[in-house]
Amino acid sequence: MAETDQASAQHAFDRAVALTRRGENAFEGRTSDDFWNFTGPFGGATAAALLNAVMMHEKRIGTPVAMTVNYCAPVAKGAFTITVREVRTNRSTQHWYIELSQPAEGVSITATAVFAARRETWSHFPGEMPKAAPPESLPKLPTRGLMEWMQYYDFRFAKNMPVPPRPEPADNDLGPALSHVWMRMQPERALDFLSLMAISDTFFGRIFHVRKSMIRIGTISMTTYFHVDADEIAAVGGGYLFGTADANVFNKGYSDQVAAMWSREGKMLATSHQLTYFRA
Amino acid sequence: MAETDQASAQHAFDRAVALTRRGENAFEGRTSDDFWNFTGPFGGATAAALLNAVMMHEKRIGTPVAMTVNYCAPVAKGAFTITVREVRTNRSTQHWYIELSQPAEGVSITATAVFAARRETWSHFPGEMPKAAPPESLPKLPTRGLMEWMQYYDFRFAKNMPVPPRPEPADNDLGPALSHVWMRMQPERALDFLSLMAISDTFFGRIFHVRKSMIRIGTISMTTYFHVDADEIAAVGGGYLFGTADANVFNKGYSDQVAAMWSREGKMLATSHQLTYFRA
Repeated sequence: MAETDQASAQHAFDRAVALTRRGENAFEGRTSDDFWNFTGPFGGATAAALLNAVMMHEKRIGTPVAMTVNYCAPVAKGAFTITVREVRTNRSTQHWYIELSQPAEGVSITATAVFAARRETWSHFPGEMPKAAPPESLPKLPTRGLMEWMQYYDFRFAKNMPVPPRPEPADNDLGPALSHVWMRMQPERALDFLSLMAISDTFFGRIFHVRKSMIRIGTISMTTYFHVDADEIAAVGGGYLFGTADANVFNKGYSDQVAAMWSREGKMLATSHQLTYFRA
Repeated sequence: MAETDQASAQHAFDRAVALTRRGENAFEGRTSDDFWNFTGPFGGATAAALLNAVMMHEKRIGTPVAMTVNYCAPVAKGAFTITVREVRTNRSTQHWYIELSQPAEGVSITATAVFAARRETWSHFPGEMPKAAPPESLPKLPTRGLMEWMQYYDFRFAKNMPVPPRPEPADNDLGPALSHVWMRMQPERALDFLSLMAISDTFFGRIFHVRKSMIRIGTISMTTYFHVDADEIAAVGGGYLFGTADANVFNKGYSDQVAAMWSREGKMLATSHQLTYFRA
């Protein structure tokens, strides 16, 4: 009974990134229907599961500072194996190589992660959070009927709210790429490195904002830099984060995305970059 | 005689990134004294050597679109081995995992690279090159007595020229992190993916600009996105590129860097991001 109660009380995100140890450097997970995207699981949840494998590893030191996830192929519904390799451990930094594979699909994700035991230093935050109306004063993005994973996020756009998509893009009516958005999980969940990794992949494809149309896209590679340690992330809690996302270029099938995330109080938590393909 | 002439005519950069095949997936290189940095070879040249291993591989398809290089430990002077692994090849994209190792040092670099056969699509370039005075009108950064690798670059700052470093940083006199710089190799060398990879690591540590003092720093992880294909990069030639670099955060020993590079004519070539440690 107690176990059942606990399981039902667990947040869907925690179930999505849960892993079972299958060896010294192997973990088993399962794609979550709750976090399903177009043709596979939401990439942010998959990235968080990969990060979780290192977080669970007893040889891990410190907290993540940089992680790059390469999406090589779609992850199929069902079980997957994550293998981790501790490539190098220095006095205060540690480098990991990570792969996700499935028996019938082969390797579909590769990743590298850098962990570090951080310490107090001089600090400086030139990347200031843009001013925005409070989230409570802004409309919540309607997500009914949209992808499953979106049901677990509360998005409130402070700039460049997505417009209803047009059937076809119009080249003579491009929108800006830059958007500002308040975002938190629903139900609320206290921020940790796993959910921060995942939320760094929640920004909509910049091409949707620019072309105002549903274009087929996919993330090829994503890098997230974590700018806070365990104490600082624990202090954030479950409230809204503020995120900005922009793009510099759409050319020959590929586009970039540059994103940043702050706590509601304006503390920079992470920056993230993506390269995405697009079919347009 | 002809061979000697050709060798002496070869650019120092090409010598620095040259590799000899040592097996199906193994290449041997050697650190270049010409591109020496503080305590090891210039990281941009090392990154270019890793990229060169995939460029030389007969199974490579297309051109690089994304590469992440993790600097796990200093590379020692002398020979090194680069091993590449073709993790996954799709119809138009290909994923590689790359390591650099030395017998006495173990693995000092890990990297992932994504290659793609790019094709014509709709294109859009919202990331515009900032306006700047022409490079010929700006002073060349004096590099005499500075690190060896800097002798091979001509830097002309259009914004936030580095000031002579102070013996100690002063917390009450911080400079901006953002700099604008024209840059090209000297002697001139036609741009290719290798030299674009390298030049994306030439931006000075943002902390030098902010604290106006020599602080010990090192790149932990760098990701470069290539926004052009082989024809577009060949059209650039050997002239000046324009680069911008900025930082969002310096906290608990780590700082980020966000950079972009355009051709002189304003075509975006690459964006690049770094996480660096600092001792201050």
